[in-house]
Amino acid sequence: MIRDLTDSEARAALPLKWGAVPEGTIPAWVAEMDFAPAPAITAALTAAVGRGMLGYSAFPGTAQPADLDAAFRGFAERHWGWDVAPDSSTPVGDVVAGLRLALDELCPPGPVVVPLPCYPPFRDVVALAGREAAYVEHDPDLDHDDPDAGALDLAAVERHLEAGARTVLLCHPHNPLGRVARRAELEALRDLVAAHGARVLVDEVHAPLVLPGQDRFVPYLSVDPGAVLVTSASKTFGTPGLHAAQVVLTDPEETARLRAVPIAANHGHSGLGMVAGAAAWRDSDLWLHALRSRLRVNAEDLRDLVAQHLPKARLRPLEATYLAWLDLRAYGVADPAGAALEHGVRLAPGHDYHPGLDGHARLNIATSEKRLVQIVERLAAALT
Amino acid sequence: MIRDLTDSEARAALPLKWGAVPEGTIPAWVAEMDFAPAPAITAALTAAVGRGMLGYSAFPGTAQPADLDAAFRGFAERHWGWDVAPDSSTPVGDVVAGLRLALDELCPPGPVVVPLPCYPPFRDVVALAGREAAYVEHDPDLDHDDPDAGALDLAAVERHLEAGARTVLLCHPHNPLGRVARRAELEALRDLVAAHGARVLVDEVHAPLVLPGQDRFVPYLSVDPGAVLVTSASKTFGTPGLHAAQVVLTDPEETARLRAVPIAANHGHSGLGMVAGAAAWRDSDLWLHALRSRLRVNAEDLRDLVAQHLPKARLRPLEATYLAWLDLRAYGVADPAGAALEHGVRLAPGHDYHPGLDGHARLNIATSEKRLVQIVERLAAALT
Ligand SMILES: Cc1ncc(COP(=O)(O)O)c(C=O)c1O
Ligand SMILES: Cc1ncc(COP(=O)(O)O)c(C=O)c1O
Repeated sequence: MIRDLTDSEARAALPLKWGAVPEGTIPAWVAEMDFAPAPAITAALTAAVGRGMLGYSAFPGTAQPADLDAAFRGFAERHWGWDVAPDSSTPVGDVVAGLRLALDELCPPGPVVVPLPCYPPFRDVVALAGREAAYVEHDPDLDHDDPDAGALDLAAVERHLEAGARTVLLCHPHNPLGRVARRAELEALRDLVAAHGARVLVDEVHAPLVLPGQDRFVPYLSVDPGAVLVTSASKTFGTPGLHAAQVVLTDPEETARLRAVPIAANHGHSGLGMVAGAAAWRDSDLWLHALRSRLRVNAEDLRDLVAQHLPKARLRPLEATYLAWLDLRAYGVADPAGAALEHGVRLAPGHDYHPGLDGHARLNIATSEKRLVQIVERLAAALT
Repeated sequence: MIRDLTDSEARAALPLKWGAVPEGTIPAWVAEMDFAPAPAITAALTAAVGRGMLGYSAFPGTAQPADLDAAFRGFAERHWGWDVAPDSSTPVGDVVAGLRLALDELCPPGPVVVPLPCYPPFRDVVALAGREAAYVEHDPDLDHDDPDAGALDLAAVERHLEAGARTVLLCHPHNPLGRVARRAELEALRDLVAAHGARVLVDEVHAPLVLPGQDRFVPYLSVDPGAVLVTSASKTFGTPGLHAAQVVLTDPEETARLRAVPIAANHGHSGLGMVAGAAAWRDSDLWLHALRSRLRVNAEDLRDLVAQHLPKARLRPLEATYLAWLDLRAYGVADPAGAALEHGVRLAPGHDYHPGLDGHARLNIATSEKRLVQIVERLAAALT
């Protein structure tokens, strides 16, 4: 059910991921998958284009052809057993736009706690919102076999809250660590922010990508209804170029206030993106099931390939996402992604995710078996 | 060549315009057209969806499947005799996002001159950018038959520049006045801003919609290379829901700086929007020709219908756009759009464009002949 794209198909489908590398180089950097989209999404988009649905999407809260809200509620119920109240989703242009809007409109003034490593635009969005970032650093020397390694350092969060931070920007599941926070951790975070009058802003764009073998995903909002959720079907279903995401709030009055911001503050959602999102949340469970099985296989392949070709590397166990986090410090190369690029593979440099952290890289496994082998072989050639 | 949509087709194609009115009410408010899209656009989008081109669009400046830059240059050359240097366009999410980005990144600090009436998000975008707005009001009592009526009041602009304003936000052609600024006016504005170290930020989204019978459109950047242009094919070709626009600059170094902003500041352009934009600029001249002829006919129909049913109304001559500006003060109704809504037609209220201005409304003529007749009849019933 998951169809690998050939190189030329991938080049035509993924202008950023493949367009940014010369012919012959394998792109394993940005979070996009070298797979054909789910059939329900292609069908829904083709039909929408056929209807000429190229105009502005409807005001949130009014009846709309692409009912993202209902589709997302169905998905949350089926996959996470989470009962989301109707009409809690407000469309935004994309996840990053949603985070920016949330910081501007929904999060209390004061510094924003940002755990590192992080998806790089997290830092930019905090700066654009005119906020100070209060970083909490993950210790790269923690033992990967310890299931708690990678959990958010709550003592460090608390110190920032005591010093005045009022928002915690959480990535759940975590990009780039690939870890899924456990319920108890989420509850502890909730209690901590509550004690300080702070608020969690949570990005769950990778939530559907919890891989087989893990416990069921716990949506943060189901534990802490006072949080702000930003999500989208885009990363899981390969539609980020269409631009549609959702801000989910549990308080209807706050939703109403968010929807009342001027057009100029929340205007970026594309109608076709919403059509794709609804088809993803509503009609693509089988494809998603196949995707997760496939990613589990790729994750195991990667573990074996790394053990074989890069025995000194440390690889975080991949609980979710298709983005593996590699500690390559033992090879003594400050910028392994830079070195890999000269050997025909583009990875995402670790220091983009954690400024100042040398010797790390993020590797995107959502590709063909053959390319995955080449990626690791080339990386090994670059480092050894 | 211009195919009118039936009511049910329009409802399926235009979720905002048609979704915001109850069954039976004719929507003549937001700037969307009740016509089927240009065939080249539908074909290009269908092909892109078929290729699975749903991922992020390429970095500006790298080779990309949807070459908006080249397509726009071709259009500017063919239609306006304007030779745009290669690689001057930077993709942005939409026109409003482009204006916001331009204010944040490209326009000197200080208040922003905003001529009134204006497209309402102009005021919001200035506020979001943390700028003060310095308004220049159009006098609604000027004689519409005077070709200079509707020209920007340069003396008022100058007073604001003297008081510290450093950006002039120009809408060219003008929404909602429907007027096209003449070359001499543009030159005078250029000289004025140059004398004050200020900069023009010009929105030319309606430029391809200069109607037959007018002089050829003069792109502001061709007169003042120091300005910032924001444009998109979206209004002319009915694709605003796809989200792709362009910031055009003449200075390559400034373009490079603009492209270097963090992802979080400029992330909203959709790949499918860029595909549609390129097909519009490059392959849709015949359709556009037919559209303009059709709009010319509709504009004349409107003039006749208004003369017949609303003899006391004053209608600005429509030189460009499909948005007619009506002065209905003689009927003594403060909010003619509100009154019209109760009679089954939704117009855009004049005070949204010019706060405090009573008795005006904007009427969208891009619809079927039959609906246009009903719109005017219902408006007349509401006012008389
Ligand atoms: C955690 C996280 N959030 C947001 C995004 C980007 O989402 P969008 O393109 O919708 O802004 C990504 C992309 O990889 C991501 O990993
Ligand atoms: C002058 C003007 N600028 C911008 C826009 C909106 O463009 P976008 O949706 O691309 O932000 C409109 C829409 O009617 C408009 O009339």
